Amino acid sequence: MSCKVVLAQGISVSYREELKNTIKARNICPKLVGFLANEDPAAAKYAEWTAKTCAETGVEFELRKCSRNDLEDKIVEANQDAGVHGIMVYYPVFGDRQDQYLQNVVDVSKDVEGLHHKYVYNMYHNIRFLDEAKTKKCIIPCTPLGLVKVMEYVGVYNGILPHGNRLHGRVVTIINRSEIVGRPLAALLANDGAKVYSVDINGIQEFHRGVGLQLKKHEVSETTLTVEDVLPLSDVVITGVPSPSYKVPSHLIRDGAVCINFSTFKNFDGDEIKKKASIYVPAVGKVTVAMLERNLVRLYDYQAQDRASSTA
Amino acid sequence: MSCKVVLAQGISVSYREELKNTIKARNICPKLVGFLANEDPAAAKYAEWTAKTCAETGVEFELRKCSRNDLEDKIVEANQDAGVHGIMVYYPVFGDRQDQYLQNVVDVSKDVEGLHHKYVYNMYHNIRFLDEAKTKKCIIPCTPLGLVKVMEYVGVYNGILPHGNRLHGRVVTIINRSEIVGRPLAALLANDGAKVYSVDINGIQEFHRGVGLQLKKHEVSETTLTVEDVLPLSDVVITGVPSPSYKVPSHLIRDGAVCINFSTFKNFDGDEIKKKASIYVPAVGKVTVAMLERNLVRLYDYQAQDRASSTA
Repeated sequence: MSCKVVLAQGISVSYREELKNTIKARNICPKLVGFLANEDPAAAKYAEWTAKTCAETGVEFELRKCSRNDLEDKIVEANQDAGVHGIMVYYPVFGDRQDQYLQNVVDVSKDVEGLHHKYVYNMYHNIRFLDEAKTKKCIIPCTPLGLVKVMEYVGVYNGILPHGNRLHGRVVTIINRSEIVGRPLAALLANDGAKVYSVDINGIQEFHRGVGLQLKKHEVSETTLTVEDVLPLSDVVITGVPSPSYKVPSHLIRDGAVCINFSTFKNFDGDEIKKKASIYVPAVGKVTVAMLERNLVRLYDYQAQDRASSTA
Repeated sequence: MSCKVVLAQGISVSYREELKNTIKARNICPKLVGFLANEDPAAAKYAEWTAKTCAETGVEFELRKCSRNDLEDKIVEANQDAGVHGIMVYYPVFGDRQDQYLQNVVDVSKDVEGLHHKYVYNMYHNIRFLDEAKTKKCIIPCTPLGLVKVMEYVGVYNGILPHGNRLHGRVVTIINRSEIVGRPLAALLANDGAKVYSVDINGIQEFHRGVGLQLKKHEVSETTLTVEDVLPLSDVVITGVPSPSYKVPSHLIRDGAVCINFSTFKNFDGDEIKKKASIYVPAVGKVTVAMLERNLVRLYDYQAQDRASSTA
């Protein structure tokens, strides 16, 4: 039994150090506002934790609590406030499609989470820049981005291969196909060369890189495969099931697989999975927050750029 | 028993005649493309029907069928084709949040259904024009718009009152709080002065006009009321439950209520409801299609306007 357990804390260190140094060296003070409009203890904990991490890095974080019916007005207020550089919302708020509406209410220039349609669309279409002059890189949704960083850290991305092909040959199962994490992640990994089985309660889709002229964009095929079929084939298993009772069936996991959990609940049975996996990452939250801060600094610079060009 | 049954066909006649005359008089040929990417017989029927209505009015309608995984690329293609003036999609496609993503993939300048975030946001915020010069009126989501027209036709809107206040004193229950119809409709009716009980499986919210400085925008309050509480209070009951087995409990309906169904299924028991309602509108599809065509002609003009100003 030689499973290596890798903690998000360690993965995030280099990103956070870099951010801290940048913020200090440039003597800037980017401000992030987080909106908490639910009673979910997991969200409150995540908020507490964002505050702590931001304090360490030199980011000003302000948590604003309100009722869910006031949230839209509060977001619009923050959109219009030049003193606020980034906005995030602790979801779920309504827990239905209204949450997706709210994601688009956050101004695209302040959306540190990268959940605005513009960013999501650009990510799916492999559009890397916001402007034609290519001075502004697109924001990538921060949990999928964090998961890519985790996979780089644990060696799933093969640095010997050229960029954009570093997952060639990898088979990945992702148990979650939400619009926030699972589906964008599947597309990102497919764009980098992986074969991805994307699992949700309605079935399994396969994401892979397009062929021929479409080489740059992922393709999706429907399958009739089951979890029993795809788990034994997968080098990497990534889970994000928002339920305390769900556990990935350990006996289906391939020996030596890399197992990563991004749910706030433990989707893997810790003892069992260590007998099968080569690498186990039980949580990724700290890496996600580091990406959030990275996005914030980027947006801070874009906003300064926009102000400079509008007064020029 | 003196219930008046009002059919959508009759309500839509004046709108369709007006459109037909406009299109003929101006000698234009606006083109609408409909995408069918599901196997839902109700969607196929609606498509068939859109085709028939368009032929009558002088609109060129083309139905394009594809697999759901190809739909996004097909929409992007139509976005870029100057020969296509309007785009609509027969939902559900994926039946989950991916459908809401697709709604934002349709270019805002071709979105005849008014489902793009920009239109929905503007509607909720009572923003009436797309441009600062106020030459382009916003597109309103077409099913809610159609339902407003139905309510005007059957006299729920009181023409004696000033515009924007013509539902003052009305109590409306809407059984459906989807992002496509129920929630925008609740906001529209509240903005016109109604008290609206918005019902979904998670509970009932009350939409009413804001007070004080916010007079122009609706407000939402949570309630602990049940259907048993709100139906007996309601002058108007509007239903859109996508299930063949759901029936509104007729005994709860107030004597003389106005009952309108926009589901493709019959949410009211026809015989029972006629004993209670003063007016019963069993379906609204034809009015919705008329609004779709109206939006198309509007977008056709905006596109011509944009081309003229970009070559000027």
